[in-house]
Amino acid sequence: MPSKNPLAGLAGRNFLTTDDLSDSELEALLELAARFKARGPGALLAGRILGMVFFNPSLRTRASFEAGMFQLGGHAIDLSIGQGVWKLEHRDGTVMDGDAAEHLREAVPVLARYCDLLSVRCFPSGKDWAVERTDPILSGFAAYSDVPVINMESSLYHPCQALADLLTIREKLRKTKGKRFLLTWCRHPRALPTAVPNSAALIASRAGMRITIARPPGFDLDPDIMARVRANARKSGGSVEVVDGFEAGFDGADVVYAKEWGSLDHYGDDAAEKALRARHTDWMVGARQMKRTRDALLMHCLPVRRNVALADEVLDGPWSVVVDEAENRLHAQKALLVALAGKAGPKAKTRTAARARR
Amino acid sequence: MPSKNPLAGLAGRNFLTTDDLSDSELEALLELAARFKARGPGALLAGRILGMVFFNPSLRTRASFEAGMFQLGGHAIDLSIGQGVWKLEHRDGTVMDGDAAEHLREAVPVLARYCDLLSVRCFPSGKDWAVERTDPILSGFAAYSDVPVINMESSLYHPCQALADLLTIREKLRKTKGKRFLLTWCRHPRALPTAVPNSAALIASRAGMRITIARPPGFDLDPDIMARVRANARKSGGSVEVVDGFEAGFDGADVVYAKEWGSLDHYGDDAAEKALRARHTDWMVGARQMKRTRDALLMHCLPVRRNVALADEVLDGPWSVVVDEAENRLHAQKALLVALAGKAGPKAKTRTAARARR
Amino acid sequence: MPSKNPLAGLAGRNFLTTDDLSDSELEALLELAARFKARGPGALLAGRILGMVFFNPSLRTRASFEAGMFQLGGHAIDLSIGQGVWKLEHRDGTVMDGDAAEHLREAVPVLARYCDLLSVRCFPSGKDWAVERTDPILSGFAAYSDVPVINMESSLYHPCQALADLLTIREKLRKTKGKRFLLTWCRHPRALPTAVPNSAALIASRAGMRITIARPPGFDLDPDIMARVRANARKSGGSVEVVDGFEAGFDGADVVYAKEWGSLDHYGDDAAEKALRARHTDWMVGARQMKRTRDALLMHCLPVRRNVALADEVLDGPWSVVVDEAENRLHAQKALLVALAGKAGPKAKTRTAARARR
Repeated sequence: MPSKNPLAGLAGRNFLTTDDLSDSELEALLELAARFKARGPGALLAGRILGMVFFNPSLRTRASFEAGMFQLGGHAIDLSIGQGVWKLEHRDGTVMDGDAAEHLREAVPVLARYCDLLSVRCFPSGKDWAVERTDPILSGFAAYSDVPVINMESSLYHPCQALADLLTIREKLRKTKGKRFLLTWCRHPRALPTAVPNSAALIASRAGMRITIARPPGFDLDPDIMARVRANARKSGGSVEVVDGFEAGFDGADVVYAKEWGSLDHYGDDAAEKALRARHTDWMVGARQMKRTRDALLMHCLPVRRNVALADEVLDGPWSVVVDEAENRLHAQKALLVALAGKAGPKAKTRTAARARR
Repeated sequence: MPSKNPLAGLAGRNFLTTDDLSDSELEALLELAARFKARGPGALLAGRILGMVFFNPSLRTRASFEAGMFQLGGHAIDLSIGQGVWKLEHRDGTVMDGDAAEHLREAVPVLARYCDLLSVRCFPSGKDWAVERTDPILSGFAAYSDVPVINMESSLYHPCQALADLLTIREKLRKTKGKRFLLTWCRHPRALPTAVPNSAALIASRAGMRITIARPPGFDLDPDIMARVRANARKSGGSVEVVDGFEAGFDGADVVYAKEWGSLDHYGDDAAEKALRARHTDWMVGARQMKRTRDALLMHCLPVRRNVALADEVLDGPWSVVVDEAENRLHAQKALLVALAGKAGPKAKTRTAARARR
Repeated sequence: MPSKNPLAGLAGRNFLTTDDLSDSELEALLELAARFKARGPGALLAGRILGMVFFNPSLRTRASFEAGMFQLGGHAIDLSIGQGVWKLEHRDGTVMDGDAAEHLREAVPVLARYCDLLSVRCFPSGKDWAVERTDPILSGFAAYSDVPVINMESSLYHPCQALADLLTIREKLRKTKGKRFLLTWCRHPRALPTAVPNSAALIASRAGMRITIARPPGFDLDPDIMARVRANARKSGGSVEVVDGFEAGFDGADVVYAKEWGSLDHYGDDAAEKALRARHTDWMVGARQMKRTRDALLMHCLPVRRNVALADEVLDGPWSVVVDEAENRLHAQKALLVALAGKAGPKAKTRTAARARR
């Protein structure tokens, strides 16, 4: 481990979005993840506890964090809100005479006393985007916790997915600079959140890729996210274009990142949103589209609805790397956990002594 | 450990039914379970992860697998479908615009990347026996996983229960050959699955026992299962008879295996099934029946409804071994986990080196 | 560790209420908890399993027991009844043709075969106090388990909370004898159980404090509990008074223990109970009340409804020790687990040898 490890600076910090990371931190994190994947991490987090708080369902996230903590010698506690755990309030000054039995202002500091790291999944509730885009629950965790908080998907971001995505692209394509990255909208029976497309665009724009975002009119991502994607691209030497049509973006693509999401223009107005979505049932990725690419990687964060968003023929075809992507969640998150716990930098050398004092 | 350990051949295999095991494998597995029970297993699965996928409730299965993995130095992840985990589709070619957010074709390979072993519980849904008897979910796990898959109870089988059952019978009776094994139907408010009676009959027929299956007309087990039970019995030197009446089977029995199950003849037709079942409310095992036996062991897989299937007087009487049976789940499953993970055979000697490479 | 450790006598015992502990056992337990908090406990429970059975929701209890077992080298299994676990019957002689698929008489002995310790949370169901006050579920666990049973909150008691409470008071006030302890009723939208106020009064009365219980008429605690509180106070040199008004009890208080609870007088008659409760909406602890105290510690077991039971200004003010209280659950419970497992007494010296035999 180099004596000037950029990951040392991550110790004790929150990880809410990939833009929290400097370029050298991001680079070092991906290198650590690749090393863990190749060799196994060892018991770097022996005795450490991750408290996972889920306000929404999860398969990969739950399993990969729990597996990762165990493989690092630590332990993950699974707390699913509303399933055997009290409902939580986040608004300040509320008279709490409704459903929620507890406020984040108590629950988070208490969990921070039991756990060395906390992680939170909280999807938006689909009512008011002006509120949701502030990520009130995640922000509450970050504000009230004095241990690092990891975003396991919020209204705005899914940064652990983004780390795994970039790790996967680098494994498969070696270099990312100048490669063509298509982020394409897909159809879905429900108006899904925009956290994954946001984080995919943000990480691709960090990697110097030439990004095309293809979505039907009315399905633009949040303007602040787009501004940051453009700023990232300028800095990394990449580019960003947004197109209306489904097919053209596939031409010459090196990566096809398919994702379903709902319209922010009609956020909270389910009927209008559904009507708009229903006009674009042709947006399903099939072999015809993939054949227009440069044998692109087909990526998707999962879960995916077969023959709705993606056809069987592409998920079962030579393009799909969706399972590798999901596997890389494990390795990227282990690197992240180790870094946030302060075990990845030069001071990691003293960890045996530190643990002995615990 | 002998140099020619029959368990070496189990490494990496699935365990879907006890008939997957050769006679020498079954014998070696029960011996290993007995050794683990006597002496404790040691950390044979240090660093290993079992992913448990539950589509249905569980007490013993969940607790015994989780306890077993911990006692072996490993870890079990508990994933309960529909409780904080996405619903899963198993049918090929489906347009997934319904409830299920994810297909086994993605979920299983992903879990196989995080876990060293997978286990699945999936009860039949009570609609169409022709479909259920193919065990579509379990078969999907077996098809899509490249790590061993353990059946924690499917439509057709509960093979972990069967291993524990035979371990219990051997402990209590020493030899099984020629012993009389009564599998008797019992009343219950609902049409329960046939997995347990199937596996009980299959394992008893492997052990050379003289089997009587007592059930009211209309409650026959699946004909393919019965054909295999008869074939097993022929090979093992046992026998099988099926009788209509409740009482006669108890005479001279060494083992009474009581179980509730629904009629396959009326599968999917709840009203007809219930009407048939309602005609046999006298099928509850009490002291009067047990006194006709040779002080038989009273066995039941649990959970059991007291004073519906079995009377208090027999569960609290001298015959009951139901808690020993449940305890043996733990020991039998630990032996199984170790064998499937490739840690029970001669190559187990190199496990320290292997782990160091992980 | 002294050669005559009072905790040696706790090995193998149940912990159902703090009154189960002798004065020297209580004292030694709190000292061990303080030592664990200062220095970390070490792997005193390596290889040991706690089976946690939840009939009701939990955040702190679940997380602190799971964290504690892991920090001690052991493992906690989380079994939530009705969430992926069969519903359980406790009444003897019942014909089990209803919801419950299993009886405690089977479930508890089985869990005791898999686990080294069991813990149970079971709130009262709000129907018939004459039944609830016998704590039938907890009593069933205690009767049918041959491993120690820990009460994680029953109808009558929350003794782990009480241990943490006294640990907190001792940390903050040093001596407890003669200090003024106000247990004050607070408003809440629902009729909450009396377990926490019972255990708070019982433990304060053990510590020689001068107790004032302030509650509106009609909200008396169970008379048997009150009799024991008075007996404890007589023995410890403390005192107990019960007052009707909200404000007066704050004068000169050293500890304000705020708690919401329902009326036992109208137990099971929701409408009458609610009407009585609705007459006392002024019982919310605010700064005005706290300023009448001697800079009292403000204590609450959590979860707490802000601006219903306690105002933001006191929870966020200088008086609140609610998070310290919750943290002390972890340390107190670790001491308890170690003691009940027989690892805190003089024989703890031989634990390495003992474990080697497991």
